[in-house]
Amino acid sequence: MNLPQPEPSLFVVMGGTGDLMERKLLPALFHLSNEGLLGKECQILGVSRSKTMNDESFRAWALDALDKAEGVERTGRGTWCSGCLHFQSIGSGTPADFEALAQRIRDLEAMYGLPGNRTFYLALPPRAFVPTVSGLGAAGLDSSRGWTRLVVEKPVGRDLESARVLNAAIHQHFDESQVYRIDHYLGKETVQNLLVIRFANPIFESLWNRDRISSVQITVAEELGVGDRAGYYDNSGAVRDMIQNHLTQLLALVAMEVPVRFEADAIRDEKVKVLRAVAPIGETDVVLGQYGGGEIDGRRVPGYLQEEGVAPQSRTETYAAIKLHVDNWRWQGVPFLLRTGKRLPKRTTHIMVRFRRAPVSLFEPYEACRLHNNEFMVWLQPDEGFDLRFEIKRPGEPFALTTHTLDFRYGEAYARLSDAYETLLLDVLIGDQTLFVRADEVEAAWGLYTPVLEREHEVHLYPAGSWGPDQADSLVTDGQWAAV
Amino acid sequence: MNLPQPEPSLFVVMGGTGDLMERKLLPALFHLSNEGLLGKECQILGVSRSKTMNDESFRAWALDALDKAEGVERTGRGTWCSGCLHFQSIGSGTPADFEALAQRIRDLEAMYGLPGNRTFYLALPPRAFVPTVSGLGAAGLDSSRGWTRLVVEKPVGRDLESARVLNAAIHQHFDESQVYRIDHYLGKETVQNLLVIRFANPIFESLWNRDRISSVQITVAEELGVGDRAGYYDNSGAVRDMIQNHLTQLLALVAMEVPVRFEADAIRDEKVKVLRAVAPIGETDVVLGQYGGGEIDGRRVPGYLQEEGVAPQSRTETYAAIKLHVDNWRWQGVPFLLRTGKRLPKRTTHIMVRFRRAPVSLFEPYEACRLHNNEFMVWLQPDEGFDLRFEIKRPGEPFALTTHTLDFRYGEAYARLSDAYETLLLDVLIGDQTLFVRADEVEAAWGLYTPVLEREHEVHLYPAGSWGPDQADSLVTDGQWAAV
Repeated sequence: MNLPQPEPSLFVVMGGTGDLMERKLLPALFHLSNEGLLGKECQILGVSRSKTMNDESFRAWALDALDKAEGVERTGRGTWCSGCLHFQSIGSGTPADFEALAQRIRDLEAMYGLPGNRTFYLALPPRAFVPTVSGLGAAGLDSSRGWTRLVVEKPVGRDLESARVLNAAIHQHFDESQVYRIDHYLGKETVQNLLVIRFANPIFESLWNRDRISSVQITVAEELGVGDRAGYYDNSGAVRDMIQNHLTQLLALVAMEVPVRFEADAIRDEKVKVLRAVAPIGETDVVLGQYGGGEIDGRRVPGYLQEEGVAPQSRTETYAAIKLHVDNWRWQGVPFLLRTGKRLPKRTTHIMVRFRRAPVSLFEPYEACRLHNNEFMVWLQPDEGFDLRFEIKRPGEPFALTTHTLDFRYGEAYARLSDAYETLLLDVLIGDQTLFVRADEVEAAWGLYTPVLEREHEVHLYPAGSWGPDQADSLVTDGQWAAV
Repeated sequence: MNLPQPEPSLFVVMGGTGDLMERKLLPALFHLSNEGLLGKECQILGVSRSKTMNDESFRAWALDALDKAEGVERTGRGTWCSGCLHFQSIGSGTPADFEALAQRIRDLEAMYGLPGNRTFYLALPPRAFVPTVSGLGAAGLDSSRGWTRLVVEKPVGRDLESARVLNAAIHQHFDESQVYRIDHYLGKETVQNLLVIRFANPIFESLWNRDRISSVQITVAEELGVGDRAGYYDNSGAVRDMIQNHLTQLLALVAMEVPVRFEADAIRDEKVKVLRAVAPIGETDVVLGQYGGGEIDGRRVPGYLQEEGVAPQSRTETYAAIKLHVDNWRWQGVPFLLRTGKRLPKRTTHIMVRFRRAPVSLFEPYEACRLHNNEFMVWLQPDEGFDLRFEIKRPGEPFALTTHTLDFRYGEAYARLSDAYETLLLDVLIGDQTLFVRADEVEAAWGLYTPVLEREHEVHLYPAGSWGPDQADSLVTDGQWAAV
């Protein structure tokens, strides 16, 4: 099976003049088009509330956005913008506004001879999700002569109940097979490669269980603070913003059983099974924190409570470390440690699989022969790749061991890595749901964390530039947090 | 336990003006001395039949040898030669000659205040082994006030019977704990590292069995022909010269169980157990060959029968490939393929551990997703190190796998590797027998190959510069010989 060529389609971005469109979607669409990957014809319709913008000013805005984007080809921008971009206002979102949108879509399809294949990308704030889905449905935009696909950005709800409400609103108009919930971590090469590493290499898969693995750590560390997202973030926090989606998705991929086939639903079935096997999260397995003032890279930075837009007494966590227990045959007894935080010493996203030590330290009569755990590191940021850490003999005498790291970085081996959004947009256009999150996955993940969110957890203050509250160290029982 | 410092001793080389002394022992001893690794005092006594050589001419000869040696420090040679080297003739090896040797040794020990620690290194042709050992014993040189150690070079016999005779002759005077049978392959960093890789890293040791490994290949390929060794080689052949010792030693290290301790006898006990578990070698599991004329590196080279010193109708094998079956719980059903030959396309020594394939090829609906076996390669020549070969996702679309090699080379990671002889000489001086071959190992190895040597095997002609006779390919049942 070759890569299917995307069929001619119309790509509609709801929130078409927003931040996500500007920084991610436009550059990705332009690059894919330049590479000839968008198929014969792909027209793009930006939709927003603006009543003053029109095709022309939208194209100028888009050209400007491409100029600001990094790593995008310089040639062909103008032609692409004027040849493929269109704008439509949704006004205040009345039924008449959606009817006008529907008419504009039919007009564009007629003009470009499109067969009615449509993507609706919701690049919108959460409160606009349900009204937009309902508006599309009411205007008959939930189906067409061709295919109709709905792309949803996080957050998908803020707890189990709200996620169910949102999914139900979506399912009122759209079948799950039409829905693409984006988690952009899943678009990274290394995340896809994790499945290849596990399932194309018996040497890894045969080590991938409780007999051989001591623990798994998944870390998403940010140097940045809350920045200009305080308004949203202060009502959300690290568990909702990162743990429930990105880190839990990574956990599911690390822990899942071999799927029946390499197909979207077969893989998502296995991911859901992992989440359902996780034991209820104990109170002592959660450590939350909030950054105070501190220093990063020699620069003073304010504490969370001093950030603009944060409530004066806010107890929102900017750090969370949670120990999960996947109680199935493969993983019983192996802790999975998820950790994320803002204002940590460096930006890094990685998965560490720590293997059990040798049962006997054969070389111990010699000095410098203390054994270390073998470790497999998967790096997602800043550079995608992986490391295998194991012991070798240091050449010469006296006899001594040293830990050696065999490392691979995609960036060194291949000239340009696809941006995660390029990968995911292409998957939407060819109709491959593998890397998108299914409704039951979202709800299973919220099912895990909603009890945590409803409990009163102490929120420990940690200085900006530290690795978070000391209390989190006690969650690791087989050594320390991964060395980075 | 730190590296023990060698005690003051006298190092006696029987065959002290021969090829091995010139090319290997002298440079190694000088380098060790320069590094301060020989301890407070180590005097060296060269012994040969020459009646004209004396201390002075021996030192001049040694200085010349050091000048010709590669990778040896330039400074300090003269001082070392005149300060540490001595010569003694053994004449025709009469009891009086050995008595004179004993007297010279006592004189030197008195002169340098040595406590009677003595090494006798037999750098001699096989026919001189037994007379020399007997001569030393008769002159009382098998023991002293300090320790006395006997170093024996290969070949240790030419079949089971002759090996037993030689070992018995040695044991008449020397206890096995005094005997150091050298196999210089065992002095290589990578061979020692193989034990560390296996026993300090659970990720490898837990893969190291019949459930995970499909086959093991051990190859020693030489570009050179028989050269000026024809006189010896034509009576020996590849099985005696290479398979029985070097390749079988490597096999034992790959296949051995975890020893009780990291100690000489514990390790050698396990190696002997492997050899005893090998099933009798079937006639169809042996392919022998002899090189004809051909081309290597664009240069015409003669066939074996045209080499000087080879018998006109010689049926001596210059190539041997043998499949062994280690019939124990760990290895039953895993073929061990040993292969060696002269006039092959390149010089390489390696061990390939080929792992079983994934039972299901999950990614096969995609093109370019044919799975390959994972492989672990241990390189001994030309560059010491190892490779791990496994499948990764090729970045971008369409979905495709590619075999990636993570590689480690000792030479890149460390400035200078010890020569195998440096390692082994130092081990002799500190009394560590780990890397030396015990009498029962030698006899067990001969026990395996003597029936092969006594059978009439066809000797297939192969062109110089080829990988040997085609018939050897059929010994490999899970793919091909390792790609190098």
